[in-house]
Amino acid sequence: MAMKVGFIGLGLIGKPMARNVLKAGHTLVVWNRTRDKARDLVEEGATAAGSPREVAEKSEVVLTCVSDPPALEEVLWGPKGVMEGLKKSSVLIDSSTVSPALARRAAAACAERMAEFLDAPVTGGTWGAEKGELVFMVGGRKDVLEKVQPVLAAMGKRFFHPGGHGAGQTIKLAMNLILALQVDALAEALALVQGAGLEGEKLIEVLQASMARAAVLDVKAPMILAGSYVPSFPLRLMHKDLGLALELANQIGVPLPATAAAREIYNAVKGATREDVDYAAVAKFWQK
Amino acid sequence: MAMKVGFIGLGLIGKPMARNVLKAGHTLVVWNRTRDKARDLVEEGATAAGSPREVAEKSEVVLTCVSDPPALEEVLWGPKGVMEGLKKSSVLIDSSTVSPALARRAAAACAERMAEFLDAPVTGGTWGAEKGELVFMVGGRKDVLEKVQPVLAAMGKRFFHPGGHGAGQTIKLAMNLILALQVDALAEALALVQGAGLEGEKLIEVLQASMARAAVLDVKAPMILAGSYVPSFPLRLMHKDLGLALELANQIGVPLPATAAAREIYNAVKGATREDVDYAAVAKFWQK
Repeated sequence: MAMKVGFIGLGLIGKPMARNVLKAGHTLVVWNRTRDKARDLVEEGATAAGSPREVAEKSEVVLTCVSDPPALEEVLWGPKGVMEGLKKSSVLIDSSTVSPALARRAAAACAERMAEFLDAPVTGGTWGAEKGELVFMVGGRKDVLEKVQPVLAAMGKRFFHPGGHGAGQTIKLAMNLILALQVDALAEALALVQGAGLEGEKLIEVLQASMARAAVLDVKAPMILAGSYVPSFPLRLMHKDLGLALELANQIGVPLPATAAAREIYNAVKGATREDVDYAAVAKFWQK
Repeated sequence: MAMKVGFIGLGLIGKPMARNVLKAGHTLVVWNRTRDKARDLVEEGATAAGSPREVAEKSEVVLTCVSDPPALEEVLWGPKGVMEGLKKSSVLIDSSTVSPALARRAAAACAERMAEFLDAPVTGGTWGAEKGELVFMVGGRKDVLEKVQPVLAAMGKRFFHPGGHGAGQTIKLAMNLILALQVDALAEALALVQGAGLEGEKLIEVLQASMARAAVLDVKAPMILAGSYVPSFPLRLMHKDLGLALELANQIGVPLPATAAAREIYNAVKGATREDVDYAAVAKFWQK
């Protein structure tokens, strides 16, 4: 069943998501802060809107995928924002990674307009977004999730529903603190081994044969050993997500000591690095 | 080729290792601080020695597998210790997890006695020890490793040789800091999710479908969710190994911030827990 879909935020993840919505036969209207990024989607059949409000006015389902909470606040509540145009009975789906509190604020604002909201952050990276094989963590009402399934199915292969509004974001932040710590642990271990005069490769080959084996090892260890950090998931976003995890943790009174330590390492590298790098560049903290 | 093998330290890992040496047709003489633990091996054909010295006097290859550096120092240099009986041309193999510095001290002491030394810590747990499928990280001379291969082959399936004396221990400490952080990260993430009112199981199912998937997730997450910590690798030993990793790091000037934070969590749980628990019990830090 073809739906009228709006997409706001055509970045590394958002653009391939939007393209898959279009390919699946839905009507697509798009908006991006930098206009250029919409151009090829328009050539492929999408309509470019002049504002987030216009996207909302023309859509049954509005998807947002922006880089951080301020960017989401701007497209939702800023001048000519989504909330000015959101139609009754429409569904706003936010696939950005933001705080559960902001997700609940967006849900409340949607409810005021008789619209529905789902927080639906994703994992799977650019590759998963392009293949339409993202994994969605969805917070909100189950019947709303079912209603938008035809749209989500164009972008993802698995849909988890951990709970009500904000639950998707909570799971995403927990996942990203694990990823951040896995990669930081790998960087600390490599720094120790190399500092002791051994080759980092020797550690990796033993890890792969042990209980310490992990998916990040396959993907991030080669980047660290080569000192090459072409961004798959940018370090600045991982740093932001660690901040969001700690913000949530401090609101609910859960201490996260290792997460806090790791965040400071990501912070140091973020401060010292001019170019956009993958979060595996946390290893630069130890590289001379 | 059957060899005369001595084994000191018949704990959770050492005893099945020793048994596999015996099964492979080697002559076996054993010693353990607690005599009882040698009893069934003797029934199976091993000889019980009265001291570590006597083990060394009767062996071409002496294996040690004790719980920490003081225990190793005691069996090597204590009264009636290995060093008093070590024969010329014999090989001492230490499969305990200790500091690289202690490994090099043992290597020097062996050299004085015209004997050889290998630091050869293992991974694979009780299961790997019983199946004869341990993974060895060996520091020392390659020709010595080849010489003792008939003995090691009875206990392990893979043998890595990252470098000279101490290299095995360095790799092992790096591996264990990764494991400790992986499990602490999982515990922090579960505490965050559960603190936010969600079910921990919801996080695990998403992680399994993501880049955060890891072997520890399969093995340790169920223990944490059930709050059941039957020791596979005891928390007190993981706490010890984190201390050894930080000791090495501070000797060579490598900062390990997340490892240091994690060690304090393991320290808190170790201090608060009377019974012997698996290191997954680090999650008790957050459990009310």
